[in-house]
Amino acid sequence: MKKIRVFVAGASGKMGQEVIRSLLKEDDFSLVGASDTRHQGMDVGFVVGLPRVGVDISGPLEVKDLQTSRADVLVDFTNPQSVLKNAKTAIIAGVVPVVGTTGLDEAELEEIRTLALKERVGAFIAPNFSIGALLMMRFAREAAKYFPNVDIIELHHDQKLDAPSGTALKTAELISEVRPPMVQGHPNEYEKLPGARGADVGGIHIHSVRLPGLIAHQEVLFGGLGQALTIRHDAYTRETYMPGVMLAIRKATGLTDLVVGLENFLD
Amino acid sequence: MKKIRVFVAGASGKMGQEVIRSLLKEDDFSLVGASDTRHQGMDVGFVVGLPRVGVDISGPLEVKDLQTSRADVLVDFTNPQSVLKNAKTAIIAGVVPVVGTTGLDEAELEEIRTLALKERVGAFIAPNFSIGALLMMRFAREAAKYFPNVDIIELHHDQKLDAPSGTALKTAELISEVRPPMVQGHPNEYEKLPGARGADVGGIHIHSVRLPGLIAHQEVLFGGLGQALTIRHDAYTRETYMPGVMLAIRKATGLTDLVVGLENFLD
Amino acid sequence: MKKIRVFVAGASGKMGQEVIRSLLKEDDFSLVGASDTRHQGMDVGFVVGLPRVGVDISGPLEVKDLQTSRADVLVDFTNPQSVLKNAKTAIIAGVVPVVGTTGLDEAELEEIRTLALKERVGAFIAPNFSIGALLMMRFAREAAKYFPNVDIIELHHDQKLDAPSGTALKTAELISEVRPPMVQGHPNEYEKLPGARGADVGGIHIHSVRLPGLIAHQEVLFGGLGQALTIRHDAYTRETYMPGVMLAIRKATGLTDLVVGLENFLD
Amino acid sequence: MKKIRVFVAGASGKMGQEVIRSLLKEDDFSLVGASDTRHQGMDVGFVVGLPRVGVDISGPLEVKDLQTSRADVLVDFTNPQSVLKNAKTAIIAGVVPVVGTTGLDEAELEEIRTLALKERVGAFIAPNFSIGALLMMRFAREAAKYFPNVDIIELHHDQKLDAPSGTALKTAELISEVRPPMVQGHPNEYEKLPGARGADVGGIHIHSVRLPGLIAHQEVLFGGLGQALTIRHDAYTRETYMPGVMLAIRKATGLTDLVVGLENFLD
Repeated sequence: MKKIRVFVAGASGKMGQEVIRSLLKEDDFSLVGASDTRHQGMDVGFVVGLPRVGVDISGPLEVKDLQTSRADVLVDFTNPQSVLKNAKTAIIAGVVPVVGTTGLDEAELEEIRTLALKERVGAFIAPNFSIGALLMMRFAREAAKYFPNVDIIELHHDQKLDAPSGTALKTAELISEVRPPMVQGHPNEYEKLPGARGADVGGIHIHSVRLPGLIAHQEVLFGGLGQALTIRHDAYTRETYMPGVMLAIRKATGLTDLVVGLENFLD
Repeated sequence: MKKIRVFVAGASGKMGQEVIRSLLKEDDFSLVGASDTRHQGMDVGFVVGLPRVGVDISGPLEVKDLQTSRADVLVDFTNPQSVLKNAKTAIIAGVVPVVGTTGLDEAELEEIRTLALKERVGAFIAPNFSIGALLMMRFAREAAKYFPNVDIIELHHDQKLDAPSGTALKTAELISEVRPPMVQGHPNEYEKLPGARGADVGGIHIHSVRLPGLIAHQEVLFGGLGQALTIRHDAYTRETYMPGVMLAIRKATGLTDLVVGLENFLD
Repeated sequence: MKKIRVFVAGASGKMGQEVIRSLLKEDDFSLVGASDTRHQGMDVGFVVGLPRVGVDISGPLEVKDLQTSRADVLVDFTNPQSVLKNAKTAIIAGVVPVVGTTGLDEAELEEIRTLALKERVGAFIAPNFSIGALLMMRFAREAAKYFPNVDIIELHHDQKLDAPSGTALKTAELISEVRPPMVQGHPNEYEKLPGARGADVGGIHIHSVRLPGLIAHQEVLFGGLGQALTIRHDAYTRETYMPGVMLAIRKATGLTDLVVGLENFLD
Repeated sequence: MKKIRVFVAGASGKMGQEVIRSLLKEDDFSLVGASDTRHQGMDVGFVVGLPRVGVDISGPLEVKDLQTSRADVLVDFTNPQSVLKNAKTAIIAGVVPVVGTTGLDEAELEEIRTLALKERVGAFIAPNFSIGALLMMRFAREAAKYFPNVDIIELHHDQKLDAPSGTALKTAELISEVRPPMVQGHPNEYEKLPGARGADVGGIHIHSVRLPGLIAHQEVLFGGLGQALTIRHDAYTRETYMPGVMLAIRKATGLTDLVVGLENFLD
């Protein structure tokens, strides 16, 4: 079997390290390069707490790094300042970028799409690599056809700054696509204290819990005649995202266009 | 709009009463008859705690009852002793039976199927009319493609005699269709006390909780790298089943054959 | 054993009926009277769906009803318009009122207290007869000593008008008694949508879910270093309150003063 | 303020490292020594992923190590082979051992107790340092007085070998102390598949879920008339135990006898 040759940008970051540890466990991948502004020249194995791997960390990504290493795929978990440049560098080098870094706006996505089409190189970008969270959203969307009444509770550690979470907003948006606009609850209901009923997204109430100890959890709660249906996802560690990243790498090698969202790779 | 004319067998039972109350709330149904061994001759409205409806309860179901009332559909929530006879009576009368009574074996199902084909009359039988429970099972089956490790916890009131529940067994069966046979847990795991790891259905562990106060609940719990995905259904009252019964009546009128299982009527 | 003689005011209401059914199951109670504006003159057994009991429903409560029936205790689940008068009527008749009707204000409580002291008759009033909910609150208060970070999620049917629930507010108040005033969450956290973080009661966030099908549920969620502790109460039916009412009747007979709150009768 | 001088045995192990990181964050502790068979001679800061601390790791614990470092307390998270010797070494050196290592049998506990009394030195041993888990058990014991019907569900990662967990067994034992022996469920209930109803500990059913991704969770579920009361603890990381270890060190300095169990230090 021909292995997929993978280059990791942002190798010293938390997600980058996790990706490298995961790649090294799989038979069908070959780690051929790694870049980061930190740990330059150090063997990537040492950086991630493993024995020597034989791949040193290079500095800011350049076309020649990708070409010398004959990479098939570039995995990018860097930062909003580097991601656009890295994705374009990959496409120009004929390497498919698999991008997990957030912060690309619509115009930048379009720029990548155009370049990918011009160079006839695929590209993949996803805001969320958690297969479990994607299934939760898919099931929530399906359930809403039968149970239009729904509240979302998302629970995160107390270092998270924004509320509601992006996943909660995305879930509400997906549900809104399949149910008619509606007002939930009793028409005369009222808040004795402001905020009790949560944030309102198209009539769907989102409640954001923030507590130390928690990690990343979401519950989508449907109520119907005499019953409730609950779909819950708990993300305990960064490993949560790895099966999704591995899946994306495998599927991305066959792309000839920009694809956005891991849901496109689920059956 | 032409209303669907419905006859209810087992009208005095708990499910029958619930069906009648639900039918009377819907615009597209007309309650045209009701039978039971109890309350014969009494107005069905009084039996279910409502004002007079104008339909009296007749005795054991006969072809002429269905014909006189020009019923389109017979809803049967009677008992294992009556259900086969009632279904056949309906088909002979040219009325589509919608059967919620359990207890029909394979041979009896075949008998109904054959008669339906011969008479060119549809028939519908379902072991479970809870749309929420059906969605839980469907989602569980889908999730198992990505998360093959799964335990099922079902929780019921302590008057339930058998364990595990039929729904839990059905869920395990559906999951087994999509995942390879596998042994979960550590190969060296052991029970310090027998039964701790639950019942084993093709490698899937089912745990049956029985407590007073509970009604009917099930949780399908998937574990993967650094995460968990949970699908839970809570049935609080008999009303749970009504949207499924109403859906079945609407869809059954278009049948020309025996259909088993409400999942066939979900998109 | 001498039985406790109980008179029930509001016998035709939902709670009153439930109380009567519960009283009739216990060996140490004797139902000696029942009053309501509805069903006057009807046997109370028929009203609650049971065989004849031999006690007819009398009209609006008067001293002589209580004296004729030689009641020890008056259970009152009537309405805010009648409760004060009924409680006073009981005390004047030398009968201990056990009051579950809500709506008494501080001045009215004081009026009852004063009358009870003067007549040397006990009285008992409770806003909540659910032993499970009281234990939840007690445990939450204890846990907060060790886990000061806490969010409260309360979930009710969508016919409930006010949010947050009285129980959630009471729980937050009890927790506030044992933890120092504090701001939870990150000091820089912000709501992208108003209400996301719920209602704020002394720094404790309360989230109110309203969905059809739900009944009355509350979860008190504590987060600490690497862990969470959750205390949850689910009330499925009105029976929830009956053990608390029965306990209150038994304990109330020994009172010589006004006692407010069932927690005073728990060990 | 005089700081408590702490020596950590098993400093290179997972728990030992966590203890050291926690000690270094607190103002009232001074880390004065650390021993392990691994990393001897290395600065303990480097071992736990922090800057230089100025304390080197010494080899197997000896009396002179404790005396030279003038330790007040020895924290021991080593292994069943070393724990007894280490505890005795501490007591002989006049240092209070705080032992988290499991595996001591009754005879060994007695040996430690006798030595502690003879030397007039306190000692502390706990099988569980999770304050959250201890509160769960305490609340469960209290709740059982009012809700004698209870099932325990414990959920762990699938590398755990034994089922049920020690915490689940301990919880059942504590509940058994306060409720009369009883058979739960319907007297005629039966298992269609063996193990469905879980392990039976004095009539309490324990269900052990094992799934990848999970960490250490337990739910104690009480059922009563029309209601359920649930107490749940989720341990997500090893940090869970640290507040308990820190509490134990602070309280242990005042001991003059052997104390077993952290519950003795909770109010």
